[in-house]
Amino acid sequence: MSDVETLLARRQVLLGPGMATFYRRPLHIVKGQGVWLWDAEGRRYLDAYNSVPHVGHCHPHVVEAICRQAATLNTHTRYLHEGILDYMERLTATMAPPLAAGIMVCTGSEANDIALRMAQAVTGRTGVIATDWTYHGNTAAVSQLSTRTPPVGGHQGHVRHVPAPDGLRPLGGQGGAAFAEAWGRAVAAAIDDLAASPHGFSALIVCPFFANEGFPELPDGFLAPAAAAVKRAGGLLICDEVQPGFGRLGSHFWGHQRAGVLPDIVTMGKPMGNGHPVAAVVTSAETLAAFRKAFRYFNTFGGNPVSMAAAHAVLDVIERERLMANAEATGRYVQTRFESLRARHPRIAQVRGAGLFFGAEFVRPDGSPDEPFTAEVVEGMLKRGIILNRLGIGMNTLKIRPPLPFGPAEADLLADALADTLAELDR
Amino acid sequence: MSDVETLLARRQVLLGPGMATFYRRPLHIVKGQGVWLWDAEGRRYLDAYNSVPHVGHCHPHVVEAICRQAATLNTHTRYLHEGILDYMERLTATMAPPLAAGIMVCTGSEANDIALRMAQAVTGRTGVIATDWTYHGNTAAVSQLSTRTPPVGGHQGHVRHVPAPDGLRPLGGQGGAAFAEAWGRAVAAAIDDLAASPHGFSALIVCPFFANEGFPELPDGFLAPAAAAVKRAGGLLICDEVQPGFGRLGSHFWGHQRAGVLPDIVTMGKPMGNGHPVAAVVTSAETLAAFRKAFRYFNTFGGNPVSMAAAHAVLDVIERERLMANAEATGRYVQTRFESLRARHPRIAQVRGAGLFFGAEFVRPDGSPDEPFTAEVVEGMLKRGIILNRLGIGMNTLKIRPPLPFGPAEADLLADALADTLAELDR
Repeated sequence: MSDVETLLARRQVLLGPGMATFYRRPLHIVKGQGVWLWDAEGRRYLDAYNSVPHVGHCHPHVVEAICRQAATLNTHTRYLHEGILDYMERLTATMAPPLAAGIMVCTGSEANDIALRMAQAVTGRTGVIATDWTYHGNTAAVSQLSTRTPPVGGHQGHVRHVPAPDGLRPLGGQGGAAFAEAWGRAVAAAIDDLAASPHGFSALIVCPFFANEGFPELPDGFLAPAAAAVKRAGGLLICDEVQPGFGRLGSHFWGHQRAGVLPDIVTMGKPMGNGHPVAAVVTSAETLAAFRKAFRYFNTFGGNPVSMAAAHAVLDVIERERLMANAEATGRYVQTRFESLRARHPRIAQVRGAGLFFGAEFVRPDGSPDEPFTAEVVEGMLKRGIILNRLGIGMNTLKIRPPLPFGPAEADLLADALADTLAELDR
Repeated sequence: MSDVETLLARRQVLLGPGMATFYRRPLHIVKGQGVWLWDAEGRRYLDAYNSVPHVGHCHPHVVEAICRQAATLNTHTRYLHEGILDYMERLTATMAPPLAAGIMVCTGSEANDIALRMAQAVTGRTGVIATDWTYHGNTAAVSQLSTRTPPVGGHQGHVRHVPAPDGLRPLGGQGGAAFAEAWGRAVAAAIDDLAASPHGFSALIVCPFFANEGFPELPDGFLAPAAAAVKRAGGLLICDEVQPGFGRLGSHFWGHQRAGVLPDIVTMGKPMGNGHPVAAVVTSAETLAAFRKAFRYFNTFGGNPVSMAAAHAVLDVIERERLMANAEATGRYVQTRFESLRARHPRIAQVRGAGLFFGAEFVRPDGSPDEPFTAEVVEGMLKRGIILNRLGIGMNTLKIRPPLPFGPAEADLLADALADTLAELDR
């Protein structure tokens, strides 16, 4: 058996069946540095996919911060420590008031699990609205939001789904303000439906960039009608910033800032510690107090000194290396290069994104999502040493979300490889 | 304001009200090494409480493993990596078949959240039984098991509580086999009650050492009648090893082995990575397959190379430094010393525990739990530079659960300080 086959067989036994890997022939990755990954055979890949190593794989400043703190002290928040306080101040300084306090946890799933309970504590109700193509995490409570595998014992009946926004196929048939209004009406209808149920309405939870939905191109102020409906009903708006947060979108530090809404609760995770398990919920003093009154909550590892050292170091690097500016500039540049490909390849319906979260949507001649073609593009890019993936309602949009040090040189490698892949597939 | 007051005021603003600390005047801890902690004023404390730094605060072998791997690669399990496979093999080698596979996560809460769903997937039912003085974690689903603050929207009705076992006040009034039988009948009655409900019965979840319940002294085979009732009803036995696992009890690597039961699912967390956020669920291939069929599950940080390096290093140190043997020997020795205190202090109703998880229960002359006195003992020990806490149904039992390198010299410091504290309180 090959190395890969051996590892797959061991996974089957030790980790169980159906534990998904990427690619037809999964990768055995052994080393990472900056925007590069290496496999066990010494082959190098340009990482245009992974958002967790936000400031670059194994960034020395983050590694050093982890090592220093791990050698000094790593304990919990029942004792006092500056790390969590300094970090929470620095984190909330990136947001508008009243987002000024929060809870440190270990995973985005834990953060969303808390966010849902915060909304319950504030409203006294339990109903939640999410899109029908979302993913907010894997705890029992949070996985109720997904439309995929239904839970044992059935859904609890407290979740309503609204259609995932699709810029190419807008709800109501029209783009612009009409699209935003139509989507807001869908949210309002779901609110009414929950309000008439025993659950009541507590919160709308969205990724403000609608990342899993395929980061659709949306009219300015798209979320405003929905946010207004939430507010009218006394509910909370939860923005899940696990994917767009921490400067990835270039123009704004947070996805909700780019979307022009002020959420009641913000959750974050993946990129926060550059791979160290750190996540958080940020909200107002009032919402946090309501939660702490309603639920006892203590997270053993959450906000520990090493996690906070890692998270501090990530913010240091974003600032020192001007990674937001890089995200914006590289994002603009690569979209220009992709646009020139679109002129030659009618299968590319649209090039879109913001900063270092971008992609292209592939369709058939009739405009319908071309998932099989997109899957071929992903494999074709891998063959050329480029790691990326696909997502969206039709799973037909490239998911390109590299570590933030991804610059113009890497953008050229990416665009050249895509041109090459498309040329091969078009033959 | 003093340093401590300043930090408390900042916590109030940034982390919200009611975020508990230990002690009347909380500690500001800045450094840890082995079984020692230092505060910001340079005062040294003997750590007789913290189980997370399992092999000692900042153990150089664990720190080095984390640093090396963090500088090499830290990514997720969609790519193949030996770290998680080698670790799962090594971990499951400490358990009896069919406990041979599992899922890596970040926190004990995540592990128990999955364990409950595994039982749902296997049985198709959702009812759970726990003790009425337990704590298994903080996700929305897992916190339903606690009897404390009721959740918003009420309990979901699928949890039944059985009385926490109390060796000094046995259910049914008799000790020995009669106590085990009486407790087994309580579990069987809860099973019948759930079976007659729409939820059905899926699992009994217990800490096999009943740590939070006050680690009562129980007759041999105490869990057998309950486990048999669970099995007859087609349910699963979940053992939460977050506290007793990884050799702490000295005689056995796992609490369930000491208790003489073979669980269907084992969960673990806290000590696993010596502070690095690592946790896991271990079960049979069949149960894991049923879960993977019923639920999509992926944990971004779970089982990543750095987490696995930390967890491997912890197992290395347990073996190399013979920490289980140390736990057993030190545990025996310190209980002898505590017993001699009991002869002089009638407030000590019982000295008990196993390995490096032990304590003493304090009662009033009428035998009722003396919580205020126990609280004074905890503060008196702190004054003498010893960190410990209290737990149990009456919150009147000392919770002594130090890092495993805690040896006879530290046991003497601890016992001398306790003698001193009791002498002062008795004056």
